[in-house]
Amino acid sequence: MDGLTLEQIAARLGGELVGDGQAVVQRLRPIATATASHITFLNRDKLRPLLAETAAGAVILPESLRGILPKSGNAIYTRDPYLYYAHLSQWFWQLGQPAFQPGRHHTAQIDPAARVSPDARIEAFAVIEAGAEIAPGVHIGAGCFVGRDAVIGPGCILHPRSSVGWGCRLGARCVLQSGAVIGSDGFGYARDASGAGVKIAQVGIAVLGDDVEVGANSTIDRGALDNTEIGVGVKIDNLVQIAHNVRIGAHTALAGCVGVSGSAEIGAYCFIGGGVGIAGHLSIADGVVIGGMSLVSRSVRQPGMYTGAFPLDTHANWERNAATVRQLHQLRDRIRHLEQYIESLKTEPST
Amino acid sequence: MDGLTLEQIAARLGGELVGDGQAVVQRLRPIATATASHITFLNRDKLRPLLAETAAGAVILPESLRGILPKSGNAIYTRDPYLYYAHLSQWFWQLGQPAFQPGRHHTAQIDPAARVSPDARIEAFAVIEAGAEIAPGVHIGAGCFVGRDAVIGPGCILHPRSSVGWGCRLGARCVLQSGAVIGSDGFGYARDASGAGVKIAQVGIAVLGDDVEVGANSTIDRGALDNTEIGVGVKIDNLVQIAHNVRIGAHTALAGCVGVSGSAEIGAYCFIGGGVGIAGHLSIADGVVIGGMSLVSRSVRQPGMYTGAFPLDTHANWERNAATVRQLHQLRDRIRHLEQYIESLKTEPST
Amino acid sequence: MDGLTLEQIAARLGGELVGDGQAVVQRLRPIATATASHITFLNRDKLRPLLAETAAGAVILPESLRGILPKSGNAIYTRDPYLYYAHLSQWFWQLGQPAFQPGRHHTAQIDPAARVSPDARIEAFAVIEAGAEIAPGVHIGAGCFVGRDAVIGPGCILHPRSSVGWGCRLGARCVLQSGAVIGSDGFGYARDASGAGVKIAQVGIAVLGDDVEVGANSTIDRGALDNTEIGVGVKIDNLVQIAHNVRIGAHTALAGCVGVSGSAEIGAYCFIGGGVGIAGHLSIADGVVIGGMSLVSRSVRQPGMYTGAFPLDTHANWERNAATVRQLHQLRDRIRHLEQYIESLKTEPST
Repeated sequence: MDGLTLEQIAARLGGELVGDGQAVVQRLRPIATATASHITFLNRDKLRPLLAETAAGAVILPESLRGILPKSGNAIYTRDPYLYYAHLSQWFWQLGQPAFQPGRHHTAQIDPAARVSPDARIEAFAVIEAGAEIAPGVHIGAGCFVGRDAVIGPGCILHPRSSVGWGCRLGARCVLQSGAVIGSDGFGYARDASGAGVKIAQVGIAVLGDDVEVGANSTIDRGALDNTEIGVGVKIDNLVQIAHNVRIGAHTALAGCVGVSGSAEIGAYCFIGGGVGIAGHLSIADGVVIGGMSLVSRSVRQPGMYTGAFPLDTHANWERNAATVRQLHQLRDRIRHLEQYIESLKTEPST
Repeated sequence: MDGLTLEQIAARLGGELVGDGQAVVQRLRPIATATASHITFLNRDKLRPLLAETAAGAVILPESLRGILPKSGNAIYTRDPYLYYAHLSQWFWQLGQPAFQPGRHHTAQIDPAARVSPDARIEAFAVIEAGAEIAPGVHIGAGCFVGRDAVIGPGCILHPRSSVGWGCRLGARCVLQSGAVIGSDGFGYARDASGAGVKIAQVGIAVLGDDVEVGANSTIDRGALDNTEIGVGVKIDNLVQIAHNVRIGAHTALAGCVGVSGSAEIGAYCFIGGGVGIAGHLSIADGVVIGGMSLVSRSVRQPGMYTGAFPLDTHANWERNAATVRQLHQLRDRIRHLEQYIESLKTEPST
Repeated sequence: MDGLTLEQIAARLGGELVGDGQAVVQRLRPIATATASHITFLNRDKLRPLLAETAAGAVILPESLRGILPKSGNAIYTRDPYLYYAHLSQWFWQLGQPAFQPGRHHTAQIDPAARVSPDARIEAFAVIEAGAEIAPGVHIGAGCFVGRDAVIGPGCILHPRSSVGWGCRLGARCVLQSGAVIGSDGFGYARDASGAGVKIAQVGIAVLGDDVEVGANSTIDRGALDNTEIGVGVKIDNLVQIAHNVRIGAHTALAGCVGVSGSAEIGAYCFIGGGVGIAGHLSIADGVVIGGMSLVSRSVRQPGMYTGAFPLDTHANWERNAATVRQLHQLRDRIRHLEQYIESLKTEPST
């Protein structure tokens, strides 16, 4: 590829360009390793000392650093260098990709009763069942499965070996990473008199809004009677489990290994940290941040940051403190008794 | 579909029918959204106020509400409405499904030395290796893998892209959701003198009893020398990991994201909450309930409910309390010193 | 198979053989169930009482038990019976396997621009894209995906339905269990002014050293700009998530359900227990052991064992103690007040 001039970049993505607009950069690199043909960015204060040393051809800098230039003399000042980096990374990515070619691999099994846009691309060993709709610009990867009557919106990307169960619906520009499963059966059983589980047929679907991304090997169950609903712009990392009838508001992000139990409702613009567990039938307000590995066992009604995780310690210290945690209730009682005795000392006159 | 009359339903599933036995219902709906052509049920006290308002054509009610009727005048009273719902949901599901059609998709790769019942159905791109046995009524989904000498019992359903490794055995009517892996190698290594891991060949198998269900992308390892054994009726949710040589008793349920370490034994009729971790080489009695996100690091010998999870709090409060948890042992000592001093006050005569 | 004589075993694997070197053993069995045609081993003190009773044809014993013989009179004494077992288990495994047969299943889709060794074996429905390199002795299982320009080193085994994304590189003798995903996109988004996520193109790769094993349905993200790097001999269990730009040192092991956040660095010869969560942008020294279900939220700079997990208790006790945990800070203050008052008693002369 021939790269981009700084002028081209600033013309499309904005920012205040200082230095040589004709300078060409071939790709993005981290500030520590970038060289003359690279553009880099500075978004972490920790990395600030590297600015004086970087050999990068150009640096994207926050407006607060206006006037400070890297060695190359080339900088673009912008309100949010990380956001600028995101947009620029997509541009470079597209430059390096072959143009999207619609078509169907000859091995793909597409039911004649499926409606597949001629502008979609279907790779080897994909299976598309009857009644499914595949919109223009969709890319169905190798070995993917799209069940009957499922709907895949325009511009979606299904990476190899991901699957969408019958009737489920993806909005525009959704991305499924490899191994993601949309529309597995929810975990619903009644117990009969003997205690054996009797399966509840799961007849709802899973509905993903526009611009949802689902990580590798993550799972989103279909609803039991109603639907599981994932809002516009929700981002889901790898190995996340979303149970039946969950509802997640717009632009919420869930980090890796999160588990959300049935019928939980999560608001918009939340951030759920890695490994968090969310119990069923509760609700979380908009704008809530949950720290990693916490259990959310009751509703969270106010925005803000919440955490619940045992602090790490050396095993020896942990063992002693953990033993004491199990006696904590008694410790509290002992403190209360001490306080009462002290109080009695204060009120009774000394003999 | 033409729906079912209330009389038909009560005739097959029992319960006391009150109202118009000829009334036809087309499907199940939640009580809040059901209309005249729907039947619904009431099983959560929280939803009780909706009973007076629901437009449902009929309601399945607990016997304790006998005499109370919804607007439609149609009700079925039964001991356990949720169980009734489960049975009815399966019936409606079957009504909406095409009849099971045995057959083999022309793309499926079935080894001539596999024994596949002519009454099984094998979808596109499935692979069935030599020596595998597929019983009547089995449905092998698209892209599934069944290894050599594996046995799939009558009526099993393997959803698309699930797999069963060599030699593993599924009982009757098991269900594997998409991406489930049965019979991966257990995590077994010895360390050589340099500290490098030396793989222990995993030559046991995984055996699933009848009516086991395994969730999407869940994994069950084969045994190292002995087998991994999953009892009759065990239900396993999504993204659950069962390590080698684990044994799980009948009708136990494991919610999403549970991890069970090697050689653990879990009893019958247990419920393991979401995200729970179970350490290796321990045993859990029958009838144990483990709260979500708990770590079980020792054997649990009595039935009952157990929990271990740090309570969620605002991050600021959590931070202060977590810091104190790390000093808990010292706090206990300080309380003891206070008590000793107080005790000395009591025994020494005041001057 | 015809089994191995004890003499053959000791000749190849070492150890001090006592008894009948011509005795033939057919396979390994656990000490409790082994019979005359089996060889077993003793590595857990708990199992020591079984030594007097075992019907095993031979027993692998630690040197500390030299002079103690099982009933059969046949024993091999070695420094580390478990390591001996590992090597012997591989030998028996190979005896039972058909010889490796290179070749390509006729259904496999191999791009003409891929470089696939004639000494590799490619199973049904595998997809190998342009530019990918498959070394001699590699076994690509059914339904696997190898993206463009990916490199699979000599002797690697990709179990059915695993995948390696574009450009990623596996060293020699790596093993991917079924459903493992190497090279999914990292979870990287900037937020635009409206709060919507803007995807950061993930253009780094994932690089696995020699002898890495990745468990079933585990996921390893590609790097954002730099690479994700998994060191030589690292062993990763099932359902583990490794985020972008993580670096893991040689011979570290990660048990099931671990999640490692972006840019974390884990040292060599560590053991990360099941269900552990590791926060991003921190580092863990060599030789660190983390107990199961712990959250590592800060760097760990000294080798040793660390834990952080709420201790399991009956639910009733837990509930009372958990409530007290949320007041712990106040409890500490109350203890301090008591101490101050007591101190004042000591210093002030009594009236």
